Amino acid sequence: MKQMRQEWEGFTGGHWVDEINVRDFIQKNYTPYDGDSSFLVDPTEATKKLWADVMDLAKQEREAGGVLDMDTKVVSSLVSHGAGYIEKDLEKIVGLQTDKPFKRALMPYGGLRMAEKACSDNGYTIDPEIKHIFTEYRKTHNAGVFDVYTPEMRAARTAHILTGLPDAYGRGRIIGDYRRVALYGVDRLIEDKKEQKAFYTCPMTEEKIRAREEISEQIRALENLKKMAEIYGCDISKPAVTAKEAVQAVYFGYLGAVKDQNGAAMSLGRTSTFLDIYFERDFKLGRLTETEAQELIDHFIMKLRLVRFARTPEYNSLFSGDPQWVTESLGGIGVDGRHMVTKNSFRYLHTLENLGTSPEPNMTVLWSTRLPSGWKEYCAKVSINTSSIQYENDDLMRPIHGDDYAIACCVSSMVVGKEMQFFGARANLAKCLLYAINGGVDEISGVQVAPKYRPVTSEYLDYDEVMEKYDDMMTWLAELYVNTLNIIHYMHDKYCYESLQMALHDREVKRYFATGIAGISVVADSLSAIKYAKVKTVRNEQGIVVDYVIEGDFPKYGNDDDRVDEIAQQILNKFMDKIRQQHTYRNGLPTTSILTITSNVVYGKKTGSTPDGRKQGVPLAPGANPMHGRDTHGASASLSSVSKLQFSNAQDGISNTFSIIPDALGKDGGVFVGDLDIDALCPSCSNIPNTSDNDRD
Amino acid sequence: MKQMRQEWEGFTGGHWVDEINVRDFIQKNYTPYDGDSSFLVDPTEATKKLWADVMDLAKQEREAGGVLDMDTKVVSSLVSHGAGYIEKDLEKIVGLQTDKPFKRALMPYGGLRMAEKACSDNGYTIDPEIKHIFTEYRKTHNAGVFDVYTPEMRAARTAHILTGLPDAYGRGRIIGDYRRVALYGVDRLIEDKKEQKAFYTCPMTEEKIRAREEISEQIRALENLKKMAEIYGCDISKPAVTAKEAVQAVYFGYLGAVKDQNGAAMSLGRTSTFLDIYFERDFKLGRLTETEAQELIDHFIMKLRLVRFARTPEYNSLFSGDPQWVTESLGGIGVDGRHMVTKNSFRYLHTLENLGTSPEPNMTVLWSTRLPSGWKEYCAKVSINTSSIQYENDDLMRPIHGDDYAIACCVSSMVVGKEMQFFGARANLAKCLLYAINGGVDEISGVQVAPKYRPVTSEYLDYDEVMEKYDDMMTWLAELYVNTLNIIHYMHDKYCYESLQMALHDREVKRYFATGIAGISVVADSLSAIKYAKVKTVRNEQGIVVDYVIEGDFPKYGNDDDRVDEIAQQILNKFMDKIRQQHTYRNGLPTTSILTITSNVVYGKKTGSTPDGRKQGVPLAPGANPMHGRDTHGASASLSSVSKLQFSNAQDGISNTFSIIPDALGKDGGVFVGDLDIDALCPSCSNIPNTSDNDRD
Repeated sequence: MKQMRQEWEGFTGGHWVDEINVRDFIQKNYTPYDGDSSFLVDPTEATKKLWADVMDLAKQEREAGGVLDMDTKVVSSLVSHGAGYIEKDLEKIVGLQTDKPFKRALMPYGGLRMAEKACSDNGYTIDPEIKHIFTEYRKTHNAGVFDVYTPEMRAARTAHILTGLPDAYGRGRIIGDYRRVALYGVDRLIEDKKEQKAFYTCPMTEEKIRAREEISEQIRALENLKKMAEIYGCDISKPAVTAKEAVQAVYFGYLGAVKDQNGAAMSLGRTSTFLDIYFERDFKLGRLTETEAQELIDHFIMKLRLVRFARTPEYNSLFSGDPQWVTESLGGIGVDGRHMVTKNSFRYLHTLENLGTSPEPNMTVLWSTRLPSGWKEYCAKVSINTSSIQYENDDLMRPIHGDDYAIACCVSSMVVGKEMQFFGARANLAKCLLYAINGGVDEISGVQVAPKYRPVTSEYLDYDEVMEKYDDMMTWLAELYVNTLNIIHYMHDKYCYESLQMALHDREVKRYFATGIAGISVVADSLSAIKYAKVKTVRNEQGIVVDYVIEGDFPKYGNDDDRVDEIAQQILNKFMDKIRQQHTYRNGLPTTSILTITSNVVYGKKTGSTPDGRKQGVPLAPGANPMHGRDTHGASASLSSVSKLQFSNAQDGISNTFSIIPDALGKDGGVFVGDLDIDALCPSCSNIPNTSDNDRD
Repeated sequence: MKQMRQEWEGFTGGHWVDEINVRDFIQKNYTPYDGDSSFLVDPTEATKKLWADVMDLAKQEREAGGVLDMDTKVVSSLVSHGAGYIEKDLEKIVGLQTDKPFKRALMPYGGLRMAEKACSDNGYTIDPEIKHIFTEYRKTHNAGVFDVYTPEMRAARTAHILTGLPDAYGRGRIIGDYRRVALYGVDRLIEDKKEQKAFYTCPMTEEKIRAREEISEQIRALENLKKMAEIYGCDISKPAVTAKEAVQAVYFGYLGAVKDQNGAAMSLGRTSTFLDIYFERDFKLGRLTETEAQELIDHFIMKLRLVRFARTPEYNSLFSGDPQWVTESLGGIGVDGRHMVTKNSFRYLHTLENLGTSPEPNMTVLWSTRLPSGWKEYCAKVSINTSSIQYENDDLMRPIHGDDYAIACCVSSMVVGKEMQFFGARANLAKCLLYAINGGVDEISGVQVAPKYRPVTSEYLDYDEVMEKYDDMMTWLAELYVNTLNIIHYMHDKYCYESLQMALHDREVKRYFATGIAGISVVADSLSAIKYAKVKTVRNEQGIVVDYVIEGDFPKYGNDDDRVDEIAQQILNKFMDKIRQQHTYRNGLPTTSILTITSNVVYGKKTGSTPDGRKQGVPLAPGANPMHGRDTHGASASLSSVSKLQFSNAQDGISNTFSIIPDALGKDGGVFVGDLDIDALCPSCSNIPNTSDNDRD
């Protein structure tokens, strides 16, 4: 049994004292807040001044064309840079990714080409010596992946039937439990990791050797995390004593992660209620005022808003911006029935008022009908005023993950410090249907990408024949897809391992093996057209079906019509089962998402005409949305179609992009009463498209 | 079916045309030579001049304290250096490891500390940037190993019960089939490797991903090999046309290997009879004279004599020199009964006369009673004159490996291009016996190194009790030993993969998992003393047995006395079975060797007094030798004891260091009639002792 430490005075003990168990600490110590937002305070002068500085830099960044400064020689690591400040004397929470705000770090481990291109596209040139080092001495994730890809994988990638493969930069979607840094101090975490390492004894199989090496890397990362804090004059070897130290320690944990990795989504976790415990203790001890508390959160959030990565213009244009997905999950209900909203949850949202609206950090409210009304009202108010809040269905996710999960990126739920995700990509199921019809020949390039299965040769499409062929082609695609991802994740672990983030996880983590799909509504409508109308094929000179003529009408997905909605469900279930049949790297547990939000446009460009009447190049519907204009029976019927898709077969999230005029939610000050069952909108999930630069074809 | 290529005109076709199969080419084309050495010619003027240059440089090297020049900034690779020459216009065979003769290359992949120390101990300083790169960006084999070692492994290493672990530099003992470069040209080899890569299809298990990545690295190495040859103005993309091109191509293959790796033993293979085929063809075509032929071989061998690595003084003092183990295997008998001695075999040995005696390349005659007498006579003559020939028992190895095996290092036999060895180290069985007696406590340091098994508590040792305890301790040691090696070989593959050497191997190679042992004769004699005499324990203040008093006499190993010889056999067989029980990395096939030659002195220093009467610090007997002076029944009885050890349980070699006065072999010009059954003397096998520098304790 471990002793209560002095730093923990005033806290209620529990399992968390003996073992690394932040959830237990939270449950034993947090104070649910049922009141309203009237306690919140305005920003301090320091906050205003700092934020004005940031806004000024942001303006300069825009004027500079999107990037203000970049490292071209210093490779980012936890200890690669000296201390950096906006305005040192004003900052309550310190720490920057590099030595200057808005200066983007150089991160070549994921892929040198991407790092080079991010520089050159923004007018910078990577240092030749760095290029030499990461070509001759140090292999990257990207180089490893392309050494192993099969010709079929490369063809599928080039044809965009597999898209957004995270093979050229960091995969992201791993949330370190940054709270551990505050609660335990780094020395205890290192001690714990040493015990974990000792767990793996002889026989030294490759799996155990890897585990021991990874933990050694984790310990090294924790040592460096202490050094990083020291650069800022902070000692995080021991537990945080004050609220300020706690916020700072959590931020240092996160800062270490974004110095180490440039993943597609570097999310923060679920920190507000955890930190609230420190705030409440300080209030009780009379050593903190509300103004000071809000200032800490404002400064913390301000730093999160500064997070930047060196990305390419293609990346930014796909995402309509420069997203980082610093997602923080707020509120939710505990498994014991108590809600988990604290005053600090309010303070987090209040930054949107104190600092103004911002997409980052991605404030995500874990929504439940049982949330306290004061919180619901405040969420509604801030939502209406800032359009900057994301809502997720806590009632749907709590039964699966309990009450200490958080959202990575936009919708990927995982228990903090216990689960992680191998980030997936997208399989284009609409294109797969066309491959089934054309016997694996790409309808745009004419290249044989998939196996030479028998194509459809008849003039009119027969439902049973197409379904059978589609089933075979989905089998091929699922196998290729998972095996492509197997290579990616093997190489990411080998050449771009997330040592700090994994250092803030338990010894054995559950790994979700994420696989996204695109084009489900096009597939459902196409099969419905084949079944309920007559679909005639139009062939080009080579005999490839390149267009379709539909005779008659057919039920369309998005109208609560089971005839077609069941097809959508069936396809999802079938494909997911085929995914599950595959061998997954490190026994990752397969999940699927239906999430394309902006990339559906790009995917549509690469997809020929489909039997539902959609023409070549026309965007696919985003996520699980019905095709635009086809949901003619109103919002409720449209939502109903989407909601029939089985969550257990798409546990990584289903998105339905959905616009409601603000008035429908009630006017300013009104009460928000509805529940949004829909998962969030997330461009990041679509990820970067395969570009010829990374193809290395 | 592939076509006979123009470059192969005059050769008899066969399987070797369709597939990479050098043995088949040799068997179909070589011309056994039954004559004597009278055809051999003196060195050319160019040879003499070049060799005088080399001797001058060697003198300068000695005067400089052992090292003439070192790279401290350029990391060695196939293409890291421009062309280097001794005297360009005179050299028939070109190529140096660096840009100057005798300049040692910088090779940090195996371990940075070793590379640093090799520099600093010789008065050079490694470039700080290189140190930074190989600390921050590029992990080494050594760093990987020490990340994974368990405390027990480190303790066993520090206590020297496990010694000579290849964890700080290259492991060596891999012979690339350098002949392939000449016979097929690099383009064909690349084509073949691409086919091999395609062999590994979905599902992409970690094993297959690794295989595909390794082959990609091999292909890259072959591309670089072509570039390396281009630096010297040579095109090795196509098969060699002339004898000169063939010798040059074989040498380039080998040169690539020693630019890429600084393994403990970088052996050449079995090239003389292969190259003889090219010589004979050129003779037939009238485009080569004997003088030119000998000059090619002289220049080739001269280059092999120049091979150097940056090593530490500890390494050199252990090996009494600066050995590279450029072993070439000569002669032998084919499985069809024809001997494989060619004129070129004579030419290789003749270099010892033309250039003078030299330990490198390590000329190894594969001896058989059925070798032609002209060859036997010439071997005897050169042996007597130069003491530079090693003999190995072909009759013993041919049944296991066939007729295209070669010797790596001193005795490790492997089929060229089809088998490789994971180089082992030494388990000190004598020390293990002391651990059995003291319940795992080290007799010198008093540290609990092995498990806390029950120690012997009686005053007099009981044979059955000691044997039972020894059996348990050997089980522990075998497990620890193999698992330590598992880590080493995993990390060597990960951080210091022999891409070029493996590029000159088949797709699937047989991997021997070598494990050496030391102290067998001390163990046999100790157990014999316990069994046949009375052995009284002498304990120190802590109760640890630190010495033994023997009352009475006992049979001693080395006198052809089955009472003790059977104990030696039993221990070897027992330990080997325990080794075989372990999980080995990549399913390596366990072999053992009993080979310590000079390191037995070091091992003895680290071993306390033993029950056979040997005192603490006294050297163990080398290899499988009887303890010095105990073999009192003559050489024949001594050899008989050794020969009872089962070769199948020590397939990696058994050594018996044995001196015979020259006259015993007949005078100069006499006939050598005896067969040496003994394997070679090999300091390298003992490897470098664990030094505190590499211990990182």
